[in-house]
Amino acid sequence: MKKVRLVIEYDGTNYVGWQTQNNGVSIQQSLETALKKVTKEDISLHASGRTDSGVHALAQVAHFCTEARMPAQKYPFALNALLPGDIRVRYAGDAPQNFHARFDATSKRYRYAVYCGAHMHAFLRHTALHVHGAIDEAALEQTAAAIMGRHDFRAFMAAGSTLADTTREIFFSKWTRAGHMLYYDIEGSGFLYNMVRILVGTMLDIACGTLPIGAIERALHTKLRACAGVTAPARGLTLMHVHYSGFNSEDFVE
Amino acid sequence: MKKVRLVIEYDGTNYVGWQTQNNGVSIQQSLETALKKVTKEDISLHASGRTDSGVHALAQVAHFCTEARMPAQKYPFALNALLPGDIRVRYAGDAPQNFHARFDATSKRYRYAVYCGAHMHAFLRHTALHVHGAIDEAALEQTAAAIMGRHDFRAFMAAGSTLADTTREIFFSKWTRAGHMLYYDIEGSGFLYNMVRILVGTMLDIACGTLPIGAIERALHTKLRACAGVTAPARGLTLMHVHYSGFNSEDFVE
Repeated sequence: MKKVRLVIEYDGTNYVGWQTQNNGVSIQQSLETALKKVTKEDISLHASGRTDSGVHALAQVAHFCTEARMPAQKYPFALNALLPGDIRVRYAGDAPQNFHARFDATSKRYRYAVYCGAHMHAFLRHTALHVHGAIDEAALEQTAAAIMGRHDFRAFMAAGSTLADTTREIFFSKWTRAGHMLYYDIEGSGFLYNMVRILVGTMLDIACGTLPIGAIERALHTKLRACAGVTAPARGLTLMHVHYSGFNSEDFVE
Repeated sequence: MKKVRLVIEYDGTNYVGWQTQNNGVSIQQSLETALKKVTKEDISLHASGRTDSGVHALAQVAHFCTEARMPAQKYPFALNALLPGDIRVRYAGDAPQNFHARFDATSKRYRYAVYCGAHMHAFLRHTALHVHGAIDEAALEQTAAAIMGRHDFRAFMAAGSTLADTTREIFFSKWTRAGHMLYYDIEGSGFLYNMVRILVGTMLDIACGTLPIGAIERALHTKLRACAGVTAPARGLTLMHVHYSGFNSEDFVE
């Protein structure tokens, strides 16, 4: 039995998300179907975490166990020949027997893309949010700084989620402008369900004047979902890469 | 009666091309349908030229005549509210009464995108060709230089086309590498049907060793389609911008 580690890129537009569900095709299911054809085994694929319907990934990490003797480095070619064009395996390699894509992740980085021009770009319609109007960029900078460090992010978790420990540590949190684009990059020890989308929605609500300056701090303090802003649409969000001790999926992004 | 000039961006993936046909939805038809809703008139839209099914545009130019009194600059907002997200009107303005988007164009620029990494990118699947294997970039440079200037491009016209004057002038022709991407940029006085795609197909055939060095010159000399290479797939091609005396659609690309 050997353990194989994959780095996977996907355009999440046409999927119900990473996790297999009964209301449409998932990324996980598409990969497991291809893996079954290659290995002739029923494979269970374990990702670093789920991504929602419409959320993308540049370098998601997942692992599986197999008795198949095919060298790990042949999997990208075998799988990409079977997969639809919106899912690509960028790397496969042997992983230590005790490796777990979810439990061993030390940090993850996400990027949220916002287009601020007058008319949305045809080519960005599935990968960025369109915000037209005045955006207070100083407020964006301030709110991004406010969530740095260790906090209880309970207010930034989708309503209805149950989780005992909602404390997470944020290592990087920054908005950057490039022409008409605004990018929010966040890296943390882990993320609650919908956390990045609620953080972005709240920051944009503040920067557009819908919520007052200080709303982030207040939501962190009260821990109430109602104090945070809207959940930003899935399409602007991309899982950029996942870090492990001795392995960083960013190294396989071309 | 006034004349309005539009600058239009589109992702051509889901269309039969610019021109209205009976086998699917065209860009022209989508725009004319939206224009009818806005003006309450049957509008005929004239583009700088057709683009094939799957070919994209960053700044296509088209004009129409209307009795509607709406100020020209309001058209982008009115039309984009009605159009699907893969077609965007980036600019509208009053044009001189004698302006014609096709006959007045002094030059057009196209870009062809090729991805050369081992595994095609999920996010580039509709906008670039994937070529994996050795590419002789010196040969690309040489072939691009060979077509500069004024030539009879009959060999680079889709078989079956009939056209008396197949001489065109090329002002710019260059391949550029950026990481795993290769871009071919070409600007000319005009282009024959499928000309850019046949030129790119021929250059790539030469650079991959399928056709000998000198095949471009031979095709130019013999004027025989059979001497040129394959027609490169539509998806890699984008109409970048169109030049007129005193008007350049590139100025409206954000």
